[in-house]
Amino acid sequence: MGGDAAETDYVERIRSSFARQGLMSTLGARLGTISLGEVEIAISPNPAISQQHGFVHAGAVTAIADTAAGYAALTLMPAGTGVLSTEFKINLLAPAVGDRIVARGRVVKAGRTLTVAQSEVFAESDGEQKLVALLTGTLITVEARDGISD
Amino acid sequence: MGGDAAETDYVERIRSSFARQGLMSTLGARLGTISLGEVEIAISPNPAISQQHGFVHAGAVTAIADTAAGYAALTLMPAGTGVLSTEFKINLLAPAVGDRIVARGRVVKAGRTLTVAQSEVFAESDGEQKLVALLTGTLITVEARDGISD
Amino acid sequence: MGGDAAETDYVERIRSSFARQGLMSTLGARLGTISLGEVEIAISPNPAISQQHGFVHAGAVTAIADTAAGYAALTLMPAGTGVLSTEFKINLLAPAVGDRIVARGRVVKAGRTLTVAQSEVFAESDGEQKLVALLTGTLITVEARDGISD
Amino acid sequence: MGGDAAETDYVERIRSSFARQGLMSTLGARLGTISLGEVEIAISPNPAISQQHGFVHAGAVTAIADTAAGYAALTLMPAGTGVLSTEFKINLLAPAVGDRIVARGRVVKAGRTLTVAQSEVFAESDGEQKLVALLTGTLITVEARDGISD
Repeated sequence: MGGDAAETDYVERIRSSFARQGLMSTLGARLGTISLGEVEIAISPNPAISQQHGFVHAGAVTAIADTAAGYAALTLMPAGTGVLSTEFKINLLAPAVGDRIVARGRVVKAGRTLTVAQSEVFAESDGEQKLVALLTGTLITVEARDGISD
Repeated sequence: MGGDAAETDYVERIRSSFARQGLMSTLGARLGTISLGEVEIAISPNPAISQQHGFVHAGAVTAIADTAAGYAALTLMPAGTGVLSTEFKINLLAPAVGDRIVARGRVVKAGRTLTVAQSEVFAESDGEQKLVALLTGTLITVEARDGISD
Repeated sequence: MGGDAAETDYVERIRSSFARQGLMSTLGARLGTISLGEVEIAISPNPAISQQHGFVHAGAVTAIADTAAGYAALTLMPAGTGVLSTEFKINLLAPAVGDRIVARGRVVKAGRTLTVAQSEVFAESDGEQKLVALLTGTLITVEARDGISD
Repeated sequence: MGGDAAETDYVERIRSSFARQGLMSTLGARLGTISLGEVEIAISPNPAISQQHGFVHAGAVTAIADTAAGYAALTLMPAGTGVLSTEFKINLLAPAVGDRIVARGRVVKAGRTLTVAQSEVFAESDGEQKLVALLTGTLITVEARDGISD
């Protein structure tokens, strides 16, 4: 299969899987750039995803960071498989405030069973961006026979 | 101040802070039992908080686990302060499916500046409960002079 | 195979594997109680394992905590397999000082491929013990065909 | 104070602190390059720091990764303070085998109280290097009045 077709494959696979994530829709999250080993997801700060001081809730920041890391991993997984997060750790470096919050997931090490990926989360304001969170997670490749595929 | 009044204080403080968390309302999360060093938060699985295979999204599980840990820490913090998560790690042990998903936050070590707390997340089905996630996080006490209080 | 024989099996398996860990010997670490899903390892504070302020180095605390978690997982793994740590997170709650530092590893969730375990690390002084660290990790079962067994 | 003098200051501060770490000496660890926000520490694989399969023990890998992250943070901390690790998470990506294992610590976000740093750990063999571990940790600045300084 040629590179172009393969690229279409993983892009379509992620768009289709993302569309089935109810939480992403509920949070108003949008898919950004998708490339081999890298996926972006963004949200816009608003009261529906806030914590008690008005910042974007760590849970919402984590949701897009985890999802971006997971889909970055999925770009490298064989067809007929699915991806699940087994664990992740996030450091919240600064309050998530601004015009847009964008998580950039990137594969650190792809394996047959386990893939390690990181997401950097940036807050964008007035054309500038600031690192507000850093997630490292482990994703597992799940076979379709377990009823799970992406 | 007597124990009863103090208890009312931290319970009211958490109820009031929780009510200002837009994300908790968006996820349909409810506060459960609140006691010194322990706070419960629950959600009901539904398509609006799902991931692509129909389970509750890790981001939603994490959001209630982090919030329960944070409020468990807040029960032990002085008046006029606020709580922020600085980092956490979560292991996702089993798919979050069932009638109700409940996060039980508990303080492991309270300090003047930093508090470490854990949340166990259980999926309840037909009266049985199963551990589906385990979060460990570090919370920081923020002074009201930083414009943050709970 | 009867319970007694099986118990002997995993106890011997861990003693034999532990004896091959050069680092444990270098740190002066000793195996303590071994039971199904639970393993203890202890060290005695001394200058050879210190950090710059005279406490036991976080690296030494982590080494016994990780090893205790790994062997706790191994008690539940089939013969002919080996155990490897894939990731862990540790919170250092208080300086590791005292007569003895003991890590108590315990399986949280055992799976065919991945096992999650925790270690609590206590500092013992004058008959009292204090929680000084908490580790959560993911262990992977490795098949003997990869040249690894315990 | 000029840049050169300041540079001498943090380099000397780290060399002096490192020399007081008994564990680093026990593991045969050596300080490498030190620059603002970045510190390298290396070990040579040998039976004294091995785990049961002959790889360098995760505890030894973690010890140099944590120490490199801590000293990277210390380069940016005021005189008269000390550094302590409050928590870290490490992903072990591949067995630590080779001629030399080197941890490269780098500050991600420096703060007045808390600093977040990462260490990448590489295994070097025949002039090639491979990423074998990735650590993210939180360091705390401790005032000299607590009897701790570096």
